[in-house]
Amino acid sequence: MSDPVPAAGELRVFPIRGVPEVRPGDDLGGMIAEAAIAEGNPLRDGDVVIVTQKVVSKAENMLVPIDADDPLSHKPLVERESVRILRRRGELIVSETRHGFVCANAGIDLSNVERGYAALLPEDSDRSARRIRDVVRHRFGVEVGVIVSDTFGRPWRRGLTDVAIGVAGITAIADLRGTEDAQGRVLQVTEVCVADELACAAELVMGKASGVAAAVVRGVDPSWLGEGSVRDQVVRNPAEDLFR
Amino acid sequence: MSDPVPAAGELRVFPIRGVPEVRPGDDLGGMIAEAAIAEGNPLRDGDVVIVTQKVVSKAENMLVPIDADDPLSHKPLVERESVRILRRRGELIVSETRHGFVCANAGIDLSNVERGYAALLPEDSDRSARRIRDVVRHRFGVEVGVIVSDTFGRPWRRGLTDVAIGVAGITAIADLRGTEDAQGRVLQVTEVCVADELACAAELVMGKASGVAAAVVRGVDPSWLGEGSVRDQVVRNPAEDLFR
Repeated sequence: MSDPVPAAGELRVFPIRGVPEVRPGDDLGGMIAEAAIAEGNPLRDGDVVIVTQKVVSKAENMLVPIDADDPLSHKPLVERESVRILRRRGELIVSETRHGFVCANAGIDLSNVERGYAALLPEDSDRSARRIRDVVRHRFGVEVGVIVSDTFGRPWRRGLTDVAIGVAGITAIADLRGTEDAQGRVLQVTEVCVADELACAAELVMGKASGVAAAVVRGVDPSWLGEGSVRDQVVRNPAEDLFR
Repeated sequence: MSDPVPAAGELRVFPIRGVPEVRPGDDLGGMIAEAAIAEGNPLRDGDVVIVTQKVVSKAENMLVPIDADDPLSHKPLVERESVRILRRRGELIVSETRHGFVCANAGIDLSNVERGYAALLPEDSDRSARRIRDVVRHRFGVEVGVIVSDTFGRPWRRGLTDVAIGVAGITAIADLRGTEDAQGRVLQVTEVCVADELACAAELVMGKASGVAAAVVRGVDPSWLGEGSVRDQVVRNPAEDLFR
């Protein structure tokens, strides 16, 4: 391991390996912090810890039994978890979930879950992030930001990217309104979804096949640390939506 | 500067500062490679260099004069650069550009551009990326991936994130079809848009107000390096689009 402290303005992004298989009721924050210690690279103040939805859903017992031999047996769950079906094509359902997310199959998927089970999204992913943050703060004495990430498609671009479905200890949106560009002109681009960008950075080191449950981004702008919420800051109100 | 070589599985993301103000006809690849050398951290084989659309458009002379005193004077340009207007709300136009991107105001914006000018998108951002890659390869002897990035909104999520509008020397999409998850089940999530995720990682160190024109992600999966194209891999064919 090279020097773990990033130079000024630099980010380091690394996986936390060695988190044991997660089971319902597990203390995910403790497992992640301890795995980082075991790797010789403990969490530090100002780190942002990105945790995949899958392990959060397992720890919170959001697993639902399905018929392992029927590839469509999770479809009734998709309808149950949705408040509005937006589009259907073949087996694909794009819907608005009861959390307000617009995604395929209500965020339910089967990969990296035990055969015969489907993992639903956490009930409240901001709360899930807060729980992890609180464990790291109170038991390990470290102030971190936490992001719960999931993998969503986009309507106009192929390929999936990770997004933040919950945050704690970090703002989801960095608001640059009123700042000036290098020419002294007030910026037009003002609100950057740093939580989604951090989720993307983390995905690059977690991969989909490797079963890595968490990653760290070290060196983020300290002004982003503080209170935040995906539900309040990122989920777009259907009333201001042009495409639903 | 700490040790510039990332540990295995780790990414380092850092800005390239000191790129001079870019003018039409400038050799952007050379300016970036030289700025990295001047900082004592030259580009290395396997680095991915992310360059903002704004400086690419400047180097390629995609600047168009507008009436600096009329805040709507770029709107006719938006219509000219669009092949299909998808939605209007107040001054906001969401359209499909002639490159196939769906974004606000046809990707035209005014921040970090000299007063009295608007910057259009490059004609072919994959080609723009190839030019930069070729200069770095032939003149500096280094094999890098290059991503041209821009900042787009999303229909269902507030806040903007960076995306790749052109790539060279790196695939835009990592295709995991056929790989197995940690339980030995074939993955459902298969195509990850790593180019967009890398653009997001870079945005985190470039900021919007700082005028940093380029950043490096060091340590990416070597299997991603090779040929790629945003136009061919990422732009979704309107025929398979559920929301246009």
